[in-house]
Amino acid sequence: MCEGSMDELGKKIGKVPVIFKELEKTDPLMHEKILAFDHLVWDDGALTRQQKKIIAIAIAAALRDEHAVYAQIAGAKNLGVKKEEIDEGLRVAFLLAGMPAYVYGKTKLEEAYK
Amino acid sequence: MCEGSMDELGKKIGKVPVIFKELEKTDPLMHEKILAFDHLVWDDGALTRQQKKIIAIAIAAALRDEHAVYAQIAGAKNLGVKKEEIDEGLRVAFLLAGMPAYVYGKTKLEEAYK
Amino acid sequence: MCEGSMDELGKKIGKVPVIFKELEKTDPLMHEKILAFDHLVWDDGALTRQQKKIIAIAIAAALRDEHAVYAQIAGAKNLGVKKEEIDEGLRVAFLLAGMPAYVYGKTKLEEAYK
Amino acid sequence: MCEGSMDELGKKIGKVPVIFKELEKTDPLMHEKILAFDHLVWDDGALTRQQKKIIAIAIAAALRDEHAVYAQIAGAKNLGVKKEEIDEGLRVAFLLAGMPAYVYGKTKLEEAYK
Amino acid sequence: MCEGSMDELGKKIGKVPVIFKELEKTDPLMHEKILAFDHLVWDDGALTRQQKKIIAIAIAAALRDEHAVYAQIAGAKNLGVKKEEIDEGLRVAFLLAGMPAYVYGKTKLEEAYK
Amino acid sequence: MCEGSMDELGKKIGKVPVIFKELEKTDPLMHEKILAFDHLVWDDGALTRQQKKIIAIAIAAALRDEHAVYAQIAGAKNLGVKKEEIDEGLRVAFLLAGMPAYVYGKTKLEEAYK
Repeated sequence: MCEGSMDELGKKIGKVPVIFKELEKTDPLMHEKILAFDHLVWDDGALTRQQKKIIAIAIAAALRDEHAVYAQIAGAKNLGVKKEEIDEGLRVAFLLAGMPAYVYGKTKLEEAYK
Repeated sequence: MCEGSMDELGKKIGKVPVIFKELEKTDPLMHEKILAFDHLVWDDGALTRQQKKIIAIAIAAALRDEHAVYAQIAGAKNLGVKKEEIDEGLRVAFLLAGMPAYVYGKTKLEEAYK
Repeated sequence: MCEGSMDELGKKIGKVPVIFKELEKTDPLMHEKILAFDHLVWDDGALTRQQKKIIAIAIAAALRDEHAVYAQIAGAKNLGVKKEEIDEGLRVAFLLAGMPAYVYGKTKLEEAYK
Repeated sequence: MCEGSMDELGKKIGKVPVIFKELEKTDPLMHEKILAFDHLVWDDGALTRQQKKIIAIAIAAALRDEHAVYAQIAGAKNLGVKKEEIDEGLRVAFLLAGMPAYVYGKTKLEEAYK
Repeated sequence: MCEGSMDELGKKIGKVPVIFKELEKTDPLMHEKILAFDHLVWDDGALTRQQKKIIAIAIAAALRDEHAVYAQIAGAKNLGVKKEEIDEGLRVAFLLAGMPAYVYGKTKLEEAYK
Repeated sequence: MCEGSMDELGKKIGKVPVIFKELEKTDPLMHEKILAFDHLVWDDGALTRQQKKIIAIAIAAALRDEHAVYAQIAGAKNLGVKKEEIDEGLRVAFLLAGMPAYVYGKTKLEEAYK
């Protein structure tokens, strides 16, 4: 398994969405470019991949993006991110994007971490 | 200076927005409630206040919220958040909310950290 | 029952979301701060709580925030807000945020008020 | 001056945006349809036009829509909407869409009503 | 069947949403104004109605507007828009509004065109 | 000049944003990945690059993304997109995202095409 593969991405983000796996067959060129970009975004660097997951969850909650909230939280759990960390990230989303952003995230968080 | 004051908040978030200071005089009750909530959001806990600043910047960029991006980056700098950390947070915003989210944040980042 | 309690909030906003009730046990400090802020927002003042509900519904519809639209409309009904008032608020959301904003609100409105 | 004209609209919404006036010459058909729809939205009905203005301001603030916030507040002032009413509408925007929504609105409010 | 009727609109946009049909009975005046505006938007002009459908899908996906994405894609299919064209429009939504925008659209696209 | 270079991108999108040019020096890896993805998005395919520009402008207007609206319109002009085409795309943005979306786009359109 080479660096930059989809398996490697799975390790980085905790869980690869189904639609992204399908893209490998239906649109290999699009898949390849997204994969390369995805790796760059999620690579450990100044921030760990776990910290980036918390950011992604907070953004998705702020955007009321139900699917992304769910996908990011599922991945975060597999990466060992703690529930308390996500909860505190969601409080920032509350302040920046309103109480419903917090509720979107909190609802999915309770489902995924119970 | 007591815990929970506005000076204390200034230490936590790096910089208190002007409009929030004015609120203390024009609407003390609203000011007090926001202050109490603000402290709860920014208190060090499972995440440090620096990590929360990076989250706030990423959310603000995702929302194309120019004022919030600017205010949060200015505060982050005063709290010692590194430019590389913010940049990596903005990459997550790119993935979750599009290239312009990255550009919004990056432009303000270059201004604040040059 | 004291001013500022959750029961009192229930009277003000028509219906307290489940997740907010749970917060009382799982995170009493967060619950307390939100409660205090919530009371301030919903208190009768220059606008009645009914007028504020209509505003909240229009904002939620504009943001395509399905959960908030539903929660706010359910509360509005309990507070005696008329269907026609909400409908006219949703027309403003149409103008400011597009036809789908109107559809989001209208669909939930018909469900709640039939 | 007939019912449904642009002058009549000016009375209803407090101020007609420049771009909308230009549209009358550059694209009369588009202008006519928008005008007809605009009248329907702003007509006094179950809500007064003043109440609708407050809703419009709150939505625009929630969307971080700087131009619409400004245009709606300018119109509201001409229609005799009180500053306190707009401020309370903006608090609802804070709760539903985050502190920056409040700041967007509050900043323009202070400018327009000083 | 006269120009500007709802049947005529159905031909233009591929499919008229249920709620819009109901509006004809419950609120004929609102229905009439929206219908007139709708016709103006969808009329073939510098762009064909098919090109406009692709734009509408991309906007709806960018806004994470699940209902609008679905409604616009259903209409597009009836108008003979090709799957590849919508897919390329969704890539633009990815770039401008993030990967979840693409996923929102792509998921509905696969459902509607399988 | 090879396929996939930044000069080649300039031809495709009409104008490369300054911040993206700077990225080539400050963050060559990020630059390379975005460039590869950008080429894939903008390549002529089922839709021409001109049609994609119109979509991008409509999305940016729907998001009240002032910088992206400006950047995309500037590029569109260089690619020979007609003003009428962009205007019709903005009407779709009006319907899907509200009158202010139309105003955002129209204002920049008049500036760029006068």
